[in-house]
Amino acid sequence: MSDDAPEGLLEAFWAYETALMSDDLETLDALFADRPDTLRGDAAGVLVGHETISRFRGSRGGAPRRTIAEVHVRVVDATHALVVAVTAPERGGRGQQTQLWERTEVGWQVTAAHVAVPAPAVDTRVWRAVGDPLVRPGTGPLSGESVAVKDLFAVAGQPVGAGNPTWAANAPVESSHAWAVQTLLGAGASVRGIARTDEFAYSLAGTNAHFGTPPNAQAPGRISGGSSSGSASAVALGHATIGLGTDTGGSIRVPAAYQGLYGMRPTHGSVPTAGLMPLAPSFDTVGWMTRDAGLLRRVGSVLLPAAAPRPLRDVVVVPELLALASPDVRAAVEGFLGAGPRGGTGWGGDGGTVVEESWDLPETWPEVFRVHQAAQAWQSHGWWLRTRLDSLGADVRSRFEAAAEIDHDTAVQAADDAARARDAVRRLVGDRVVVLPSAPTVAPELGADLGEVRAATLRLTCVAGLGGLPAVSVPLTTSDGLPCGVCLVGPPRRDLDLLDLVTGPLHA
Amino acid sequence: MSDDAPEGLLEAFWAYETALMSDDLETLDALFADRPDTLRGDAAGVLVGHETISRFRGSRGGAPRRTIAEVHVRVVDATHALVVAVTAPERGGRGQQTQLWERTEVGWQVTAAHVAVPAPAVDTRVWRAVGDPLVRPGTGPLSGESVAVKDLFAVAGQPVGAGNPTWAANAPVESSHAWAVQTLLGAGASVRGIARTDEFAYSLAGTNAHFGTPPNAQAPGRISGGSSSGSASAVALGHATIGLGTDTGGSIRVPAAYQGLYGMRPTHGSVPTAGLMPLAPSFDTVGWMTRDAGLLRRVGSVLLPAAAPRPLRDVVVVPELLALASPDVRAAVEGFLGAGPRGGTGWGGDGGTVVEESWDLPETWPEVFRVHQAAQAWQSHGWWLRTRLDSLGADVRSRFEAAAEIDHDTAVQAADDAARARDAVRRLVGDRVVVLPSAPTVAPELGADLGEVRAATLRLTCVAGLGGLPAVSVPLTTSDGLPCGVCLVGPPRRDLDLLDLVTGPLHA
Repeated sequence: MSDDAPEGLLEAFWAYETALMSDDLETLDALFADRPDTLRGDAAGVLVGHETISRFRGSRGGAPRRTIAEVHVRVVDATHALVVAVTAPERGGRGQQTQLWERTEVGWQVTAAHVAVPAPAVDTRVWRAVGDPLVRPGTGPLSGESVAVKDLFAVAGQPVGAGNPTWAANAPVESSHAWAVQTLLGAGASVRGIARTDEFAYSLAGTNAHFGTPPNAQAPGRISGGSSSGSASAVALGHATIGLGTDTGGSIRVPAAYQGLYGMRPTHGSVPTAGLMPLAPSFDTVGWMTRDAGLLRRVGSVLLPAAAPRPLRDVVVVPELLALASPDVRAAVEGFLGAGPRGGTGWGGDGGTVVEESWDLPETWPEVFRVHQAAQAWQSHGWWLRTRLDSLGADVRSRFEAAAEIDHDTAVQAADDAARARDAVRRLVGDRVVVLPSAPTVAPELGADLGEVRAATLRLTCVAGLGGLPAVSVPLTTSDGLPCGVCLVGPPRRDLDLLDLVTGPLHA
Repeated sequence: MSDDAPEGLLEAFWAYETALMSDDLETLDALFADRPDTLRGDAAGVLVGHETISRFRGSRGGAPRRTIAEVHVRVVDATHALVVAVTAPERGGRGQQTQLWERTEVGWQVTAAHVAVPAPAVDTRVWRAVGDPLVRPGTGPLSGESVAVKDLFAVAGQPVGAGNPTWAANAPVESSHAWAVQTLLGAGASVRGIARTDEFAYSLAGTNAHFGTPPNAQAPGRISGGSSSGSASAVALGHATIGLGTDTGGSIRVPAAYQGLYGMRPTHGSVPTAGLMPLAPSFDTVGWMTRDAGLLRRVGSVLLPAAAPRPLRDVVVVPELLALASPDVRAAVEGFLGAGPRGGTGWGGDGGTVVEESWDLPETWPEVFRVHQAAQAWQSHGWWLRTRLDSLGADVRSRFEAAAEIDHDTAVQAADDAARARDAVRRLVGDRVVVLPSAPTVAPELGADLGEVRAATLRLTCVAGLGGLPAVSVPLTTSDGLPCGVCLVGPPRRDLDLLDLVTGPLHA
């Protein structure tokens, strides 16, 4: 085939290959056409424009070693040719690379490239372990479903890894499953695997410093959200149908919103936490994410206490909460409010009303949440982290370091304030459903500064967190086509009623 | 971008997409240029020619459901354009498709396509379970190495699946590791995962009817070889560095040869089989495969009994055995004989000699092996399979059905004959190394009739099998660039000396 190659083309092809192997960025840049519409695509998405592609190359730190196993040249016309190569990475397997070359005034240049590398055994950004299945299920209403278990729950035969390699290397092998895992197995769902988490679940970002950020399939180039990051990505990627996670300060709601999933954070205490590593017990809840509203509801039937249905009808919108979101997310939430909880049918089908109500929320609440969470987090993990803070990524480390500094009086005060806030939130919500954004923005881009994002997120998520209230995140799409979420917060122990509002009653 | 699209191009693009979703083969064929150099590539390799591509489409039974998330059009010239699409498979994740379109006299047609789909959580043809790691190691000489454990060895916390879903669903969870697994862990190698096997290891093909054939990365479109199929593919794909398997009738040597790996079948009885599901105990051995000769040797130091080195010097070539191979494999073996065991240095460096020696091998030996193996296989598994033969794939089922028919006298006679053959082989080999092809051919193509392949393979592999002798398979390449293997069979309990001959002495 390469007999067909026009003069200079294969030389340019091999020059590119040589530059790739030596990470010679200048030559690589020169061999890609310097145009705003030059393309480079791989499993992470399509990059458009020479500058974007060049920036990507500069940040990845070299391509994996490889040789070329096959080259197929297809001449298009006098100045264009397609070169399809089968690559043989040194680590094993075969990849493929398709390049459209053009003879420009500076010589042959790539104008579009598609790079595919062999899949690793497992995407370790998403999973710590995965199987077909990893744990066999019983039979029940969830037969055929598969669970991504956040690496914070006990799975018999495996240690709990908690997103931290030093902890994972020394943790004991568990001899029985956590309550939630055992209950899902008993209901027929298999355990697909153990999914990555932010370290000790103490983040909303998913940017685990040791294992990388799980991919956000619905928003390539953006963070996954956390801390139930692996569970969320596993579901969004179709690797599992149920993402089992936890929500202390938003760790279900945020990744669900960022990745276009349904997410359920139950009433505090309504799903047993036996076998779950704690972060901040007075806020910790066992939650789950799905791509499908009906399945979100069916998992609820399995994990939540049964209760006679009492439909939730009255919906409250709080302008002060809506105003905390970026315009695109706010517009999506307003669209949801107009369309109704199941799209298009409005709220009237359930006889419900939507009222706007101004709330004078104490500005101290996010800080009360933060300090009470931090004090408990240090209580949970300080004994071990005390001498191992350097095993943590910078972000989580700074949070634990701050937590270590909280003195006894401050901690007691925060606990008191949190108890009062809990009552206040419950009074405000009453027997109604509050609709607010699940997170203030769409998923930030990879590499963005996340400090302010976390603070802004907690201002929204702390409402259900402090209230200990059930919250369902429903996936929406911004006008830019990016995932975001709307959150429905309901009265305590009305979890199933809240799910019914979103998904319609279960027809079991 | 799609504003750029020339007339009719996007219509053709969407017509293709519609045809793909309805598996309308006629339309798909019509939209690919009917030329011998039309290309279609995916993770399984590049197909060349309209007919080959059409045949592939006809056999796959439809493409997975998907929608198109992005379309980028790049006009090349008046009659050519590149269309890059990001695909959104219904099961989750994102894929990419690059197509070169040409306006021919019958309209727009694809002349080259590159299709990439999102990787599954795990390639279930290769793995039953996989982790980072699945089981944590100790520390020792194999630290940093990772093991793909054939699903025939006990791994604590997991059942033994044996390649059969019915067995796997009911097998008890193991409470301790098999000896070989425990020993590798103790030496510092982690367990990467549990790799697929042919059902009950009773095959040399790797074509598991339930989980599919693991990909052969070195020879796309060809079978993996078996029964240590998953372990071999895992190593060839770079998912693990050590493939732990078993060799009864060639189950290490054959996949090693087909996939370009080093393979070690030890002296019968030299590596403990505790915690290993048996097939035919008087032939079963614990073996391993690597991409690297040095690592093959280092694993030997861990699993084999220590012994003072006694270099093996005298090499025998038996024309009758060489003649059992196809011309391409024979040529590769002859090349190896000329070059010497470590390439280029000849045999003389170790003071060795290569003699040709004609052996009048009894034609009954393969049948003796077959019957003695079959009788033991039924002894091992007949109690369970008796009522569950329909849980087996056709190939393995027919073998077990034949095994069930062997009467007592025939079985006793085969055991006697096998004992006599063992003595005869050991006398023939003496203190020397016999060089023969590991398998008679390169890996057969997927879908090929394998009945005759198995018979021809056993004629070669039964020599070490009957003799209970150590055998190392060394990877070679045919003149067509396909992997094949040469097998060095040594005297009993001279496993380490045999490894030294291939890899050079270990510098620990």
